[in-house]
Amino acid sequence: MQTIFFENKPRIVATGTVAGPKECAGVVGNFVDRTLDDDTFGESTYEKAECKMLSYAISKAIENAKLKESDIDMLISGDLLNQIISASFAARDFDFPFLGVYSACSTMSESMALAGALVNAGYFRRVVAATGSHFSSAERQYRYPLELGNTRPPQSQWTVTGAGGCVIADKGSDIAITSATFGKVVDFGITDVNNMGAAMSPSAAHSILAHFKDTGRTADDYDLIVTGDLGALGSRILKDLLWEKGVDIQKNHVDCGEIIYNVIEDEFQGGSGAGCSAVVFHSYIMDKIKKRELNRVLFCATGALLSTVSSGQGESIPGICHAVAIENL
Amino acid sequence: MQTIFFENKPRIVATGTVAGPKECAGVVGNFVDRTLDDDTFGESTYEKAECKMLSYAISKAIENAKLKESDIDMLISGDLLNQIISASFAARDFDFPFLGVYSACSTMSESMALAGALVNAGYFRRVVAATGSHFSSAERQYRYPLELGNTRPPQSQWTVTGAGGCVIADKGSDIAITSATFGKVVDFGITDVNNMGAAMSPSAAHSILAHFKDTGRTADDYDLIVTGDLGALGSRILKDLLWEKGVDIQKNHVDCGEIIYNVIEDEFQGGSGAGCSAVVFHSYIMDKIKKRELNRVLFCATGALLSTVSSGQGESIPGICHAVAIENL
Repeated sequence: MQTIFFENKPRIVATGTVAGPKECAGVVGNFVDRTLDDDTFGESTYEKAECKMLSYAISKAIENAKLKESDIDMLISGDLLNQIISASFAARDFDFPFLGVYSACSTMSESMALAGALVNAGYFRRVVAATGSHFSSAERQYRYPLELGNTRPPQSQWTVTGAGGCVIADKGSDIAITSATFGKVVDFGITDVNNMGAAMSPSAAHSILAHFKDTGRTADDYDLIVTGDLGALGSRILKDLLWEKGVDIQKNHVDCGEIIYNVIEDEFQGGSGAGCSAVVFHSYIMDKIKKRELNRVLFCATGALLSTVSSGQGESIPGICHAVAIENL
Repeated sequence: MQTIFFENKPRIVATGTVAGPKECAGVVGNFVDRTLDDDTFGESTYEKAECKMLSYAISKAIENAKLKESDIDMLISGDLLNQIISASFAARDFDFPFLGVYSACSTMSESMALAGALVNAGYFRRVVAATGSHFSSAERQYRYPLELGNTRPPQSQWTVTGAGGCVIADKGSDIAITSATFGKVVDFGITDVNNMGAAMSPSAAHSILAHFKDTGRTADDYDLIVTGDLGALGSRILKDLLWEKGVDIQKNHVDCGEIIYNVIEDEFQGGSGAGCSAVVFHSYIMDKIKKRELNRVLFCATGALLSTVSSGQGESIPGICHAVAIENL
């Protein structure tokens, strides 16, 4: 059993989101709390801009929940930078305990799953879960200096510049986290660091199937199954993998990476990065949940577990996917 | 309130530890499950050796608990390498869910605190918490290539080559985790990347004081207050900081970093790294708890929150310390 159930129904009380100009040209533009004019956010480095976005998302979620900093019991966060410095330095801005987590781009759902678990158990009343990413800090850490102007292969994705978070509390809204399925590390032997969708989609399939098995639910029980950042290609692979197992998610699946940009598949597959699902879910998707256009959503952020060192040493790229079930009561 | 209480008293059922030859020349030598002949552990790279040590510690803890892999519900782990690849790749070896965490060298107590929280709440029955580090992989990631043979300043510490973990379960021993205090990020403005002890000791003081305030306990209530890897200098700073607040831990404090090697203070301050407290606590200290030479211990692993990028961009080094109370029933 990979799933735990939240009988006390911890609530998503409010969200906070910020994204860059490229991101806000698309579907999230009308729903984020703040659109950046440029991706430096007034800072001198991309890393500091990434950290500031995360701080903003945390503060804004607290403000949108009509709470004060002193009302918050804990921050759960992580990010893609080495030693999760965005999260660690953002946490320095706040006077509450910090739990650092990392599961690459699955960090948003991992944080929400843990926050739900801690609130449901009564350990804490109000926990913030948040993450983010930045195109330029990710490019230079994982790939090449931007100045090189490298050609990107068509299977690649574009790291989202943005951050998102939410306040999860014992009460305060009708939107509850009802269960969480913790993912296993799944490795299909993909070694192409430009093809994250292929690397992550088996883990998404694995966790979605585990969720259905553990809960007795089927794909039809969800209005929407939202994956993190598989991109257009990865999303198709996921649908194929599930179809082979007799599960049809053709009609009720969207991938945050596929919808955040206007994908042109012979150029790129869409968005990626921890901030991708954080921004899309906490702005665009949550808006539809609040309006009850969606009433039961399975949110499955997906992470590719690699570093420049692991790839350089010939390791493949395993994936992981943590899933949380979110429902209007 | 930074502390949560575990009424159901999750137990530390068994531990697994492995360390390198330099480490095993000291106090942990008689207590680890395995002493490596050389620090490559038969692998072609230091990173693969680090990952293999972590896998070993996880497997050995399960074996020592007289359990099978299929009895385990989850692994909680993280490490110092970029994108916690040791933990992620070690998790690939096992068929249970993986929760990636990161708080630098505080990862051991963070993992145990979370494992305790999940088991106490009844979400899972048996969770493994583990971490590790490797001198050579840390040196080349954080500092300089070993081949440079750089002189080390006297305030520096030596990253421990080793890994340790434990099985935390609903029953199976008389050693319980009774509470956990989650740390805040504390920044005293230290910028010397060689002086981790000074960077981390304020966070240790902060979490220890929070633990006493939240629990109503005093230093005298503990047979031993064990910090992670402050080293000799950091340990003295901690004692001074607490003394200023009216708390005396002169008689019942040890630091894992200070005791793992034979410290010569004009050369170096002792051990560091996530593996430092993991190995010392789960071998030497746990042996004394099992023999009831120690009956109530506060384990406070400490982490320095930095990366080569954050230091290069002029950031200071904040610290964090998560504490768990461990008691013989």
